[in-house]
Amino acid sequence: MASAQPNDAEGLPLEGLRVLEIGHYIAAPFATRLLADLGAEVIKIEPPVSGDPVRKWGAAEDGHTYWWSVHGRNKKCVTLDLKSEEGRALLKDLVAQSDALVENLRPGQLARLGFDDAQLHEIRRDLVICHVSGYGLTGPLADRACFGAIGEALGGLRHLSNHTPGTTDLPPVRVGISIGDSLAGLYAAIAVLAGLWSKSPKGRVADVALTESVLSVMEGVLPEYGATGLVREPSGGRISTAAPTNAFPTADGGWVLIAANSDALFRTLCEVMERPDMADDPCYRDNPARCRNVDALEAEIGAWTRRYDAKSLERRLAQADIPSSRVYTAADIAEDEQYNARRMVQWVDDPKLGKVLHPGTVPMFGSSSRDVRWTGPSIGAHNRDVYGGLLSLDEAQLDRLSRNGTI
Amino acid sequence: MASAQPNDAEGLPLEGLRVLEIGHYIAAPFATRLLADLGAEVIKIEPPVSGDPVRKWGAAEDGHTYWWSVHGRNKKCVTLDLKSEEGRALLKDLVAQSDALVENLRPGQLARLGFDDAQLHEIRRDLVICHVSGYGLTGPLADRACFGAIGEALGGLRHLSNHTPGTTDLPPVRVGISIGDSLAGLYAAIAVLAGLWSKSPKGRVADVALTESVLSVMEGVLPEYGATGLVREPSGGRISTAAPTNAFPTADGGWVLIAANSDALFRTLCEVMERPDMADDPCYRDNPARCRNVDALEAEIGAWTRRYDAKSLERRLAQADIPSSRVYTAADIAEDEQYNARRMVQWVDDPKLGKVLHPGTVPMFGSSSRDVRWTGPSIGAHNRDVYGGLLSLDEAQLDRLSRNGTI
Repeated sequence: MASAQPNDAEGLPLEGLRVLEIGHYIAAPFATRLLADLGAEVIKIEPPVSGDPVRKWGAAEDGHTYWWSVHGRNKKCVTLDLKSEEGRALLKDLVAQSDALVENLRPGQLARLGFDDAQLHEIRRDLVICHVSGYGLTGPLADRACFGAIGEALGGLRHLSNHTPGTTDLPPVRVGISIGDSLAGLYAAIAVLAGLWSKSPKGRVADVALTESVLSVMEGVLPEYGATGLVREPSGGRISTAAPTNAFPTADGGWVLIAANSDALFRTLCEVMERPDMADDPCYRDNPARCRNVDALEAEIGAWTRRYDAKSLERRLAQADIPSSRVYTAADIAEDEQYNARRMVQWVDDPKLGKVLHPGTVPMFGSSSRDVRWTGPSIGAHNRDVYGGLLSLDEAQLDRLSRNGTI
Repeated sequence: MASAQPNDAEGLPLEGLRVLEIGHYIAAPFATRLLADLGAEVIKIEPPVSGDPVRKWGAAEDGHTYWWSVHGRNKKCVTLDLKSEEGRALLKDLVAQSDALVENLRPGQLARLGFDDAQLHEIRRDLVICHVSGYGLTGPLADRACFGAIGEALGGLRHLSNHTPGTTDLPPVRVGISIGDSLAGLYAAIAVLAGLWSKSPKGRVADVALTESVLSVMEGVLPEYGATGLVREPSGGRISTAAPTNAFPTADGGWVLIAANSDALFRTLCEVMERPDMADDPCYRDNPARCRNVDALEAEIGAWTRRYDAKSLERRLAQADIPSSRVYTAADIAEDEQYNARRMVQWVDDPKLGKVLHPGTVPMFGSSSRDVRWTGPSIGAHNRDVYGGLLSLDEAQLDRLSRNGTI
C-alpha cells in the first residue's frame, strides 16, 4: 500500500504536485503516468468493480496484464461511482485538494455530472483542467466517436505510413502502437505543466484533441501543400529529401537502418563499402543527385548489406561513426547495452506478476529518477490511503461507502 | 521586429517565461517552439551567417522554406558565435536572464565551451537545463552519432511499422516525418516545465534521449516480451488484438479507416453493410473470434468498401457513429471542417512568403491561444531586440559585435 511507502518522490521534479485523473484507455492515463513518473501524486479515479478497461489489454497472467504493470505504475488507484450523489460529493472533496485534473470522458460528460469548468473552479480556484478528446471540445465534430487510430488517419500520419504510390496494394500501416493516443498524452502532460505556470485564468483550461496532436507533428506537410498545392505522398522507408536513408536487408533476414545523407557521411559509407568510386560518381555526388538516383543507390547499398549479418554490419557502420542501427525488436531492446547502462530497461518487482520488464521513466533527471516507485495497482488499491488519509474518512464511513457501491 | 509587437503573449499560459535555445534541426527547436506557442519568450541562438541548417529543409520560395515559417515561429532568433570569447560572454549574460536552457549539441560540447551544468548554475542558480541527444548523456554509446530515424529504429517503432511477416519484401516504412525527433521534443518540453515546478536542484537538469523517447511510447511491447519471450511483430494496418480495425480501400483509390472493434460497434457496422448475419456469425461474434478470422473478415468489409467513394463511405459510417475516417492527405486536412472551425489550420501572414498555411498551436487554451504571433524569423532578426533591449548594449557595441562576427 502506498501509505506504507517512504516518501519516494523525494528529489523528483514534480514532488508535491497532486493530479486527479478521470481517464480511461490510453491518452489521459498516459499523460498522468508521465507526471507520476516525474514524482507527482496522481489519483486515478475508476468506476467501482469494472475499472479502466485498459487493465485487460494485452498478454496476462491470472488476469493481470503486463502492460498494466507499466501503464498504471506510480499512480494511486481509487474507485468512485460518479453517477451517485455521494460519489460526486467525494469528487468535490478530491478536486478541492488537487492542483490539476486530467480527463478524457466524452466531451461534455463531466459537465453533465455537475463539473463544468466554472463549477470546478468554484471548488478550487486555481485548478488546472485538461480535457482530452478525439476531435476537441468545440466545432461541428466535437461529439463524434474517435479512437487513436482515427486521430492518426485524420492527422495525416497514416497516409504517409506507406510505400511509394504504385509500389504495393497493401494498406498503409499502423506504427504498431497507438501513437495518436501517446502524442495526445504528451501534449496533455505539457498542458498541465504549462497551466501550473500560468498567471492567467485562461491559461488553466486546456483542450487537447487526438487529431490535432497528430497534425501538430506533421512538420512541413501542411505549409508546403498550402503554398505549392503538392500533396506529400509516402516514401516507404526513405526520407524523400535526403539519401541514403532507409532500412537495408541483411543476410540473416534483419534490417539495418543507415542514415548517411550528408556528403561527408556518404563518402565515409562508400569507403566502408570499399566503393570510393561511388562518392565521386556524378550520380551520387551530392544530396540532390542521390535523391534523383535513389533507386540505383539503394540497390547498390542493399547488395552490399545483404553480404553481412545484421550485428556484424551494425559493428562495421558504428566503427565508421555512420548514423545507423539494426531495426530493433523487443528482444534487441531488452539486451541493448546502452538502455541497460542507463536503466531505460529494468526489471521491477510487481506483487502480482513477479519481475516485470519496465521501460525507465523519461525524461531522466539523474539516474535515480529512473526508479519505478510501484507497479500498476489493483482496482481501488488506494481507497484507504486516499479516502482515509487525504479526505480523513473513518473506518465506518469507508465500510459504508464500500458496501453501498460508492467506492 | 519583435520590439514593435504588442504584448501578444497576454493570457497565454507561459507568458513571462524566458527560454534559451542552443539547438538545431528538429528535436530541441521543436521543444522550444511548443513553449513559444504557449507564450514563452524563446531566444534561439544560431551561428552567425549559416544559422540552423533546418532553415533550408523542404520546399522554398526565394530561399525561404515554408516549413521554417512554422518551425521557427513565435521565437526570437539571434546569432552568436560560441567559439569566440566575446560570444561566450554574451551567452553568460543571456543565461543570467533566462529561466531555462534547451540544447541539442553533441553530448559534452556545451561543457567544452565552458558551460557545464555546474557552471550554468553558477551563472543562474535556478536555471532549468534540458539536454537533448540521440542516446542520452551517459552510457557507452553517448558519443555516437544519431538521427531521428535511428531513434525510431532503436526505440522499436520502425520494426513494427511494417506489414505482417511474410507479406512483402519491402522494408519497414518511415512514418513520413521525424517522429523520433518530435517525441524527443515533446519530452523536452515536459522536462523544462517539470523542472520549473521542481523544488529540488536534482529536478532541474534533464537528459532527454531520442531513442528513449521512442521506447517510452511502446506500450506493452517490452513488458510482454520480458514475461513471455514473445517478440511483437508488425501487423500492417491492423491492431492485432482488436478487429476490425484497418484502412479499407475505396472505389476512388482512397482508404477509409474503420475502428469497429467492440461488439456493439461491429453489430452497427454489420447493419450499415446490410449484413446483419455477420454479427451473429460464430466466426465474428466477439473480438477473439474476429481476431482469429481477421483475413476473412477484412475481405468481407473490403469488398463492401470498394463499392463506394471515400467521401460517401465516410458519410455512411459517420451517420452510424462508427469510429472511422478517410485516411487524410494534406489536401484533406486543409479543407477539413473541424480543423478550420477550431483554427487548427489557419493562413498566417509571413513577411517573406505571403500567406502560409500553419497548423494551430497545441494544446489549445481557448480559441485565442491559437493565434500565431509571428512566423519563422530571418537569421539574427532579433539581435537588436535581445542584445540591445534585454542586455542593454548600445548601438556602437552592436555594430562592433556585428562587424567582428560575434553576432
